[in-house]
Amino acid sequence: MNPLKWLSDEYFDLNGLYVDVLEEPPTALEFSRLAHISRPVLIKGFEIPANSKLWTDEYLIQRMGSRSVSVAVTPNGRADAIIAGPDNKFYFTEPCVEEMTMANLFANLSEDDRSQGSETYYLQSQNGNLYSSQFFEGREAPSEFESLRGDVPSEISWCSQALDRTPDAVNIWIGDGNSVSSIHSDPYENIYTVVRGEKLFTLLPPTEGWCLNERVYPHASYVRDPDSSQLRLQPSAEAPRVRWSSITDPNLPGALCDSAHPIHVVVKSGETLYLPAGWWHHVRQSGITIALNWWYDIEMRGPSWVLLEFLRNIKDVPDGNEKTKHNEEETAQ
Amino acid sequence: MNPLKWLSDEYFDLNGLYVDVLEEPPTALEFSRLAHISRPVLIKGFEIPANSKLWTDEYLIQRMGSRSVSVAVTPNGRADAIIAGPDNKFYFTEPCVEEMTMANLFANLSEDDRSQGSETYYLQSQNGNLYSSQFFEGREAPSEFESLRGDVPSEISWCSQALDRTPDAVNIWIGDGNSVSSIHSDPYENIYTVVRGEKLFTLLPPTEGWCLNERVYPHASYVRDPDSSQLRLQPSAEAPRVRWSSITDPNLPGALCDSAHPIHVVVKSGETLYLPAGWWHHVRQSGITIALNWWYDIEMRGPSWVLLEFLRNIKDVPDGNEKTKHNEEETAQ
Ligand SMILES: O=C(O)CCC(=O)C(=O)O
Ligand SMILES: O=C(O)CCC(=O)C(=O)O
Repeated sequence: MNPLKWLSDEYFDLNGLYVDVLEEPPTALEFSRLAHISRPVLIKGFEIPANSKLWTDEYLIQRMGSRSVSVAVTPNGRADAIIAGPDNKFYFTEPCVEEMTMANLFANLSEDDRSQGSETYYLQSQNGNLYSSQFFEGREAPSEFESLRGDVPSEISWCSQALDRTPDAVNIWIGDGNSVSSIHSDPYENIYTVVRGEKLFTLLPPTEGWCLNERVYPHASYVRDPDSSQLRLQPSAEAPRVRWSSITDPNLPGALCDSAHPIHVVVKSGETLYLPAGWWHHVRQSGITIALNWWYDIEMRGPSWVLLEFLRNIKDVPDGNEKTKHNEEETAQ
Repeated sequence: MNPLKWLSDEYFDLNGLYVDVLEEPPTALEFSRLAHISRPVLIKGFEIPANSKLWTDEYLIQRMGSRSVSVAVTPNGRADAIIAGPDNKFYFTEPCVEEMTMANLFANLSEDDRSQGSETYYLQSQNGNLYSSQFFEGREAPSEFESLRGDVPSEISWCSQALDRTPDAVNIWIGDGNSVSSIHSDPYENIYTVVRGEKLFTLLPPTEGWCLNERVYPHASYVRDPDSSQLRLQPSAEAPRVRWSSITDPNLPGALCDSAHPIHVVVKSGETLYLPAGWWHHVRQSGITIALNWWYDIEMRGPSWVLLEFLRNIKDVPDGNEKTKHNEEETAQ
């Protein structure tokens, strides 16, 4: 018996593809039950001061003024993704991070499809750029987005009460249809709300992670060449290797094995996704999209975390640049 | 890697032997979190009309009058346990069930240690003898203990709210120190309260179930011989074989393998144990002991149930009467 296949088949048989839709936010008790069930839920009617009417380009530009924000810049919209380097080896590649004003960021975003050749900008610093764990520990925690904090509550009462903790990080995301977040999972309960635009999530339950061909890859970053001022991929000298999925786009036909049952969820402006800890997600967006998310640490007591650790540790993770027959290894596991 | 050993070691490393003690019953929200963590919790201060002062022998005898109740009778205090039959084969053996009045039951219970040779009586019908699932479905559901229902709430508000369901069964248990419940697990969240006496639970988490040497055994029952009026073990002609632990007493030195970390919880009169679904329990009692329990169906959506199913299905369950070297099989898994 292959334990990973058994678990994914059993989970799918019992849970199917169902995604619950709530017409209004849950109570703390309702959300506690949902976190126990640990399925994605689309939540409507979760209202915060930041909303599409208020958060126009003009408002954000005016509010942020000359303050600079950290923006991920890539030649292709793919940050934190597996990219072939100049030596034809594959690297887990981080974006080039550049400081700019909000006005500059918006000038580089577009409602249209990718204009070939130009660089892609994505504000995705995801380090608690609005509120970090220091903030919740009561320590000094300056934010690039200090001037937007009034529009974004630091925590969500029904979620904090249900999970009996404050968030670990609250982030703002601003990008356009040219950016994609490659498939990965986080050890966080994630409340992800879309303020403007639309996010397209492709989700897999934790039990189907073995279909994502995780490999270990050397680390690289995009850097801006001072001479040509072009971005180029630069392998890192010291950084440890990174475990990452080899599937570039789970939405391509045949990308996933038969045991994978991807779930597609579109999160529109004003809607909120509960993305449970350990769920795999690939995220696209259509047009200029602004989102906020609250990450809460997962409950590490009890069976859920042990199961996630098991799913993560029971599989072999080969070298992504070894020319072995991956598929054969996969089946033989 | 042996998945069962990996899971039990990891669970123990993360969770240890800790049993939370609450000085008062949890709120629904608190209990929802506890059910997610799925660790045993000792709860004080859960008060119901049935209590040790009210529920004297005299009161119960008077209340029940001439009504008859179903009592498990065995030669040895071991019902639903693995017992050697007349052919020296091992059987999963159910008790002889006899109808008697409450007065008759109490006349056969004792505050003292086992008086060798006499039969053991244990009211443990555990079929929802106070309130059954029919009752909660609004159907007619007569109970042997109709006249005690006024003292026992049919459901526990903080538990029903947290789990978003009514109980599946509510049971009364009346026995003495001569009865033991052999180690097993149930697919129920269990709220177990002691009215009089004291229960001694030996608990193992679901992840350590592989240390209990489950085997399949033929089925038998104790029957009363019409001639000698003695109890004898009678193999069943038709009943399917039963999967059960081969460990008669997990408290004997060396009974369990090194990966097992039994937890001992004494539940005294007025105290309540939350025994999470899937936890293994062996139960003794000291003196005449009266208990009540509410069984709630486990949440089958999400990861907890899948993990329980995995732990149950990944192991080989050999025939309990095969003369193979069980220990060698166990290690080779
Ligand atoms: O919005 C995105 O591009 C990615 C979001 C994400 O990965 C997360 O919230 O964990
Ligand atoms: O009290 C006992 O003897 C056994 C209780 C039990 O097994 C249960 O409540 O599930």
